[in-house]
Amino acid sequence: MPEVGKYLSQINSPDDLKRFKPEELPAICAELRQYIIDVVSRHPGHFGSSLGVVELTVALHYIYNTPYDQLVWDVGHQAYGHKILTGRRDLFPSNRLLHGISGFPKRSESEYDAFGAGHASTSISAALGLAMGSKLKGETDRNVVAIIGDGSMTGGLAFEGLNNAGVQKTNLLVILNDNNMAIDPSVGAFKDYLVDVSTSQRYNKLKDEVWNVLGKLNRFGPNTQSLIQKIDRGVKSILLKQGNLFEALNFRYFGPIDGHDVIYLTKVLDDLKRIPGPKLLHVKTVKGKGFPQAEQDQTTWHAPGLFDKETGEIIKTSSDPRPRFQDVFGHTLLELAERNPKIVGITPAMPTGCSMNIMLEKMPDRTFDVGIAEEHAVTFAAGLAAQGMMPFCNIYSTFMQRAYDQIIHDVALQNLNVVFCLDRAGIVGADGATHHGAFDIAFMRSIPNMTVAAPMDECELRNMMFTAQNRPQGPFSIRYPRGKTPNADWQKPFELIPIGKGRTLREGSSLAILTIGNTGNFVNEISDKLLEADIDYAHYDMRFVKPIDEELLHKVFKKFTKIITIEDGVLKGGFGSAVLEFMADNQYNAEVVRLGIPDAFVEHGASHELYEICGYSPNDILNTAKKMMKPAIANHETHHLRILQAFKFFKQ
Amino acid sequence: MPEVGKYLSQINSPDDLKRFKPEELPAICAELRQYIIDVVSRHPGHFGSSLGVVELTVALHYIYNTPYDQLVWDVGHQAYGHKILTGRRDLFPSNRLLHGISGFPKRSESEYDAFGAGHASTSISAALGLAMGSKLKGETDRNVVAIIGDGSMTGGLAFEGLNNAGVQKTNLLVILNDNNMAIDPSVGAFKDYLVDVSTSQRYNKLKDEVWNVLGKLNRFGPNTQSLIQKIDRGVKSILLKQGNLFEALNFRYFGPIDGHDVIYLTKVLDDLKRIPGPKLLHVKTVKGKGFPQAEQDQTTWHAPGLFDKETGEIIKTSSDPRPRFQDVFGHTLLELAERNPKIVGITPAMPTGCSMNIMLEKMPDRTFDVGIAEEHAVTFAAGLAAQGMMPFCNIYSTFMQRAYDQIIHDVALQNLNVVFCLDRAGIVGADGATHHGAFDIAFMRSIPNMTVAAPMDECELRNMMFTAQNRPQGPFSIRYPRGKTPNADWQKPFELIPIGKGRTLREGSSLAILTIGNTGNFVNEISDKLLEADIDYAHYDMRFVKPIDEELLHKVFKKFTKIITIEDGVLKGGFGSAVLEFMADNQYNAEVVRLGIPDAFVEHGASHELYEICGYSPNDILNTAKKMMKPAIANHETHHLRILQAFKFFKQ
Repeated sequence: MPEVGKYLSQINSPDDLKRFKPEELPAICAELRQYIIDVVSRHPGHFGSSLGVVELTVALHYIYNTPYDQLVWDVGHQAYGHKILTGRRDLFPSNRLLHGISGFPKRSESEYDAFGAGHASTSISAALGLAMGSKLKGETDRNVVAIIGDGSMTGGLAFEGLNNAGVQKTNLLVILNDNNMAIDPSVGAFKDYLVDVSTSQRYNKLKDEVWNVLGKLNRFGPNTQSLIQKIDRGVKSILLKQGNLFEALNFRYFGPIDGHDVIYLTKVLDDLKRIPGPKLLHVKTVKGKGFPQAEQDQTTWHAPGLFDKETGEIIKTSSDPRPRFQDVFGHTLLELAERNPKIVGITPAMPTGCSMNIMLEKMPDRTFDVGIAEEHAVTFAAGLAAQGMMPFCNIYSTFMQRAYDQIIHDVALQNLNVVFCLDRAGIVGADGATHHGAFDIAFMRSIPNMTVAAPMDECELRNMMFTAQNRPQGPFSIRYPRGKTPNADWQKPFELIPIGKGRTLREGSSLAILTIGNTGNFVNEISDKLLEADIDYAHYDMRFVKPIDEELLHKVFKKFTKIITIEDGVLKGGFGSAVLEFMADNQYNAEVVRLGIPDAFVEHGASHELYEICGYSPNDILNTAKKMMKPAIANHETHHLRILQAFKFFKQ
Repeated sequence: MPEVGKYLSQINSPDDLKRFKPEELPAICAELRQYIIDVVSRHPGHFGSSLGVVELTVALHYIYNTPYDQLVWDVGHQAYGHKILTGRRDLFPSNRLLHGISGFPKRSESEYDAFGAGHASTSISAALGLAMGSKLKGETDRNVVAIIGDGSMTGGLAFEGLNNAGVQKTNLLVILNDNNMAIDPSVGAFKDYLVDVSTSQRYNKLKDEVWNVLGKLNRFGPNTQSLIQKIDRGVKSILLKQGNLFEALNFRYFGPIDGHDVIYLTKVLDDLKRIPGPKLLHVKTVKGKGFPQAEQDQTTWHAPGLFDKETGEIIKTSSDPRPRFQDVFGHTLLELAERNPKIVGITPAMPTGCSMNIMLEKMPDRTFDVGIAEEHAVTFAAGLAAQGMMPFCNIYSTFMQRAYDQIIHDVALQNLNVVFCLDRAGIVGADGATHHGAFDIAFMRSIPNMTVAAPMDECELRNMMFTAQNRPQGPFSIRYPRGKTPNADWQKPFELIPIGKGRTLREGSSLAILTIGNTGNFVNEISDKLLEADIDYAHYDMRFVKPIDEELLHKVFKKFTKIITIEDGVLKGGFGSAVLEFMADNQYNAEVVRLGIPDAFVEHGASHELYEICGYSPNDILNTAKKMMKPAIANHETHHLRILQAFKFFKQ
């Protein structure tokens, strides 16, 4: 158990916090910060964001009557301090572990988590809903606060929330936590605007000065009166009403203030409680505050993994020479872009996360980090494609959900040449339910004109990217998982892949196993055991969910009566369903067992633990195969039963 | 053929337009406006929007070198004038008819349609992509203009586009077509802001005045110098850089100007061509301009149907006493809200379109029109539900695509009590490819915790709504089609529907027909013909895609070997696939023929024509049943072949 400071050890709820005097808050902040450093150094998770809001977190719980007053943390990876102060101090070392606490706020975990998160830019809309619900219920004394970073503020949903909140009569407080960072540095006009507001002239101070000046000018006599009146009317309305982006949207704007002065923060928050209507408090913070290495290199220390809290050295836990899928993507994209001048790269605020920073560094004019703005990323890509370019738009599978309409309406309907690369597809592990890339196979394959591909390994990924940029027309999607590739040796020459053609990895006679993407490796892992069990299986890596390889499927259904499909994605509507559709449309009959993510949200844990819970780990595949080949002993219903029971462990 | 004026008859392309003198433009505008009135009065379509931009359209094509210069129309229902001036004058009477021209810009229809549309808020992102693509290709002389309404500007995507465009070095011009309307009046803080900018003090004029004043103040001697310098620095930076919402995002702002003064518009546009960098021109227009009734009642005349162009009387074409599904929704929602104080209504800018205006009028405090902001609508609903309310969130199926992530991440993952009502689900007819609600069954049923229901008729819709607000927990979606209900008599007492239970409409022995939602009525239409053909069919209205009625399906698969599934939605991953999944998971064998929307985008036309093209019209169902019952004569492959051929007629 990590050491807990003398203040923090006494704080089991915000009520305990409130017993201390304001002047003790800096010491509490120091202990909270140290505890986060201690625990996260040994139990990896998000780091810099929570350090940056230590003072803000303490001030909020000191001033507000939580959980009756409600805090809505945008994204939520900065909420570690909040969790520690709200009864989860001793559970914190279980952060992100299977059946441990979540790395994000979660309603089912604590009454202090007013609204769950994981994706960006939701907090203003959600908080407005909470505030309006309270109002309708007559709870006029309840405060609702949304805490949103400057990176999240660029997401369109945040703007939609502001636009609506500005005309609703609630007392919503939005705290803009401005640290000039998302995971990578913030980008876009809005970021420049915040820098202007914060640095060139302090906005509020200036406003005071202008008012003082206008007062003094009255002394200069009647010949300036009409001029002064004009200034007065004009400057008043513009400066006060239109003089600020937020005030233009009818929010009263306050700040910017120092987000690391906890005592001042409590005073400001206390004042703001008495001001009615929608308000925005602009707080300047430093991501990674209090841990020098994290302040210096904020992108690396967003989620550094294990580290030595004394030396600040990040601990490499493995000497695994295999690259990550994202690295293969990043290097390959640059390689292709060097050959094909039509290629451009687009990422919504994830250049480091998806390794597009490799291209960004070498080709800054052809690589676009558009900020947290998945919808724009896709429609912008469509515009580029309509002009004859070949955009590679890389968006994590889970975030691609946010651009679903743009994929359909702006890209696929116009059959434009956009290549979608979906990183983090399938189970992602410790980030949990909000981040698993569970749905993309199902939602992509419904879209006409879309090619849906998934590589099993590093070379297939390279070749699919090579193939995607070498075609005449239409959208092409490639999904690949988080983590390491199966093999270290990835820099092989490019080969074209025939679109819609699978690969035969093993011929067999008794059982056909059809895999898509990374699940093919699960089968390779148990190859010996299958043979030991006398199962002469055939293994087909389908490579494409759409167009699906009908020639290969005809062969399979003509030869086999027992078939397993395996996918790292939802079963409802996914790859296995595509196989069933083929079977029905062509009037084949076979016993088809589909393995994949069942119809439930999957929580956090190690990926291999979650595959097992979902019932498509290598071992599950082996057992499924055995049961299918010996139907007298058991059928796969027991398999489903076990999965259902496993899911009961999740707190939902 | 409608009469074409003497100018307009000579204009077959923008080059023809450019031959006329500026002083002739008002007459050209008058003829263009009259032609739109003439044609749309007889061939129904969108009306007010195109009338409002007649002058802007003429000015744009007069000044810009289209199609090399590119115009991107947001939503696109205002582009009739654009189509008429760009070679489609004589085709215009075929607007929105099967194989006629589309009611929206469409890349495959004309090189002048630089980017297709139908959904709102895409134009800035798309135009930025076009502009950036041009720049990368070295086409520095190409101009790209996005024309976007104030309603569309509230969509988050538009803000994301502005935020990115503000830092990209292109010469993008955004024209804000400010008529204070979407289909219904615009709402939100942004709208108020535009009204402030436009009416209280004309922004640019004021800016000049302030500058003049500051200059004159210098005369008052040295004792004002330091004050003046402070004002000067402060006001300069704030007014010029931060003094306007768009300038805050690094756009140079111009306007507002009169959008009906065509000559002045041409001068301004000509000037703007010479100003580098991102620019926004604020143009004030009147929706419906030039047709008095349309100016007066802009919501009704957004798309009025047939009308008498002389009297302005809207022609009722039918005395059909049956209500529209949306009317049943609207009245029922109010009825339920009167009984259940937890119910609130949420619509993103469609109170009239979905009939939530009925509740809005009676219960303004519990009904929220949040503007064009589907994402916010859903997350706001989630916040309300988290506070214990029961939001009914009504979004057209096609626009629900835009909130896919919010449904998953903010509602379903937290298992919140939001009722989603998806109007215009399935084929919608003349609005065409961008508007068909094709995907919702597939994308909704993949989501854990989601109930997916579809009523066959007016009473079922009422009872599903009644049932949805009477449950303990979780999201509930109800999809229903555009248009009339099957029966006139809809105001029956509420009945609870057992969740996940289908209805047996006919027992039979030889063929099972499983329908979801409105397609059940297609079967009723051909009931006699099926019996005449000696097909003793059973008909099950499944009502729920999820949870699907497993008890009923066991009964069906035990009894029948021939099954037809019918859905008004995509076949890939849809209702039929859910039935196949059940069949495979329970190891049944049957010949299952799935009817629904094939894997292609469906164009515009009358709904009955499109059902036929897609192969699930009543007649198709009859033929499918006949073929299945007489397999020796033909199999359903010929059916698929016919569909494929039908799709070739679409220009794609």
